[in-house]
Amino acid sequence: MPTIAIHPSVDNGFKATNAAFLGGTLVCNCAINPVKVRIKGDIAHNHACGCSKCWKPDGAVFSVVAVAPMENVEVLENGDKLAVVDPAALIQRNACKDCGVHMYGPVERDHPFKGLAFVHPERFEEQGSANPGFAAFVSSIIESGYDPAKMDGVRARLRELNLEPYDCLNPGLMDYIATWTAKKNGVPAQ
Amino acid sequence: MPTIAIHPSVDNGFKATNAAFLGGTLVCNCAINPVKVRIKGDIAHNHACGCSKCWKPDGAVFSVVAVAPMENVEVLENGDKLAVVDPAALIQRNACKDCGVHMYGPVERDHPFKGLAFVHPERFEEQGSANPGFAAFVSSIIESGYDPAKMDGVRARLRELNLEPYDCLNPGLMDYIATWTAKKNGVPAQ
Repeated sequence: MPTIAIHPSVDNGFKATNAAFLGGTLVCNCAINPVKVRIKGDIAHNHACGCSKCWKPDGAVFSVVAVAPMENVEVLENGDKLAVVDPAALIQRNACKDCGVHMYGPVERDHPFKGLAFVHPERFEEQGSANPGFAAFVSSIIESGYDPAKMDGVRARLRELNLEPYDCLNPGLMDYIATWTAKKNGVPAQ
Repeated sequence: MPTIAIHPSVDNGFKATNAAFLGGTLVCNCAINPVKVRIKGDIAHNHACGCSKCWKPDGAVFSVVAVAPMENVEVLENGDKLAVVDPAALIQRNACKDCGVHMYGPVERDHPFKGLAFVHPERFEEQGSANPGFAAFVSSIIESGYDPAKMDGVRARLRELNLEPYDCLNPGLMDYIATWTAKKNGVPAQ
């Protein structure tokens, strides 16, 4: 058992991945009438996330979350059980009203991530989706009650898992956001 | 000459510091009637900052900025030349209306940094203040027009200068902010 629990899908070794993974079906946690959402095609930017809003399984300190184009998301079954957790949030997290699992969270407002949906790959029925590649919003776990004195240990454990810890997103995504903002503001590249 | 310019005070080697530095006088860039601001006591958290709002000398891609308790800040001369750049911003940057140099920027609203003032140590008349220890808001230089394709080089150069690059603040400060937020929201530490 690891000293510091991050998330069940990484604490005891990563699962095998399949470079040819072409999507699958996300299923919520309900034993009866589960919500099923199909993702057509692969996911991207899978990562551990410490923010207080992403869905986490019981006992997890981080969520594991990735994105897919919203055009690749299709609700297959029991969509009437879905409701948006916080309509004011950037990510419109559609959660199952019965079990609480977040099934997909599109970004609909003007934003560099517009057109993407956030999904939790651990809910795929199928094996083979990409493992998380970094950890985002690490300091934010403190906002959910994590002991600040234990943060050095958390970051060390994340590095041990090859999940480089960041307190925002990773440099590639942060640069992408800044580039979008510069273009939106009409700032010429020098 | 370094290939990638960061800031004049770091590009050609750091200046000698004095662990017993006890503050000094910040002076703006005006040849006549310069604004002078006394900082009583040492500065803290000196760092390079890529945000688009901090004052930078000509040709610099980053600013170099630190904090001091606002109670240690005293305007000595020509305070009538000072004006707040953006009254809506968290940091109330008091700049010289003639030369544009930011002299001190207090945080006055409810925030973990309330009571601190941001200052630019390169404006000290005296030698010996602490050198910058990390680089914050690195991706944000793109918002001011820096070429996104050159960011790997920027981060490599910052590491070469022992200015670990972050796209927000450093982990210690990010944890401090999150801890303040948890307490404010009444979240019990687990």
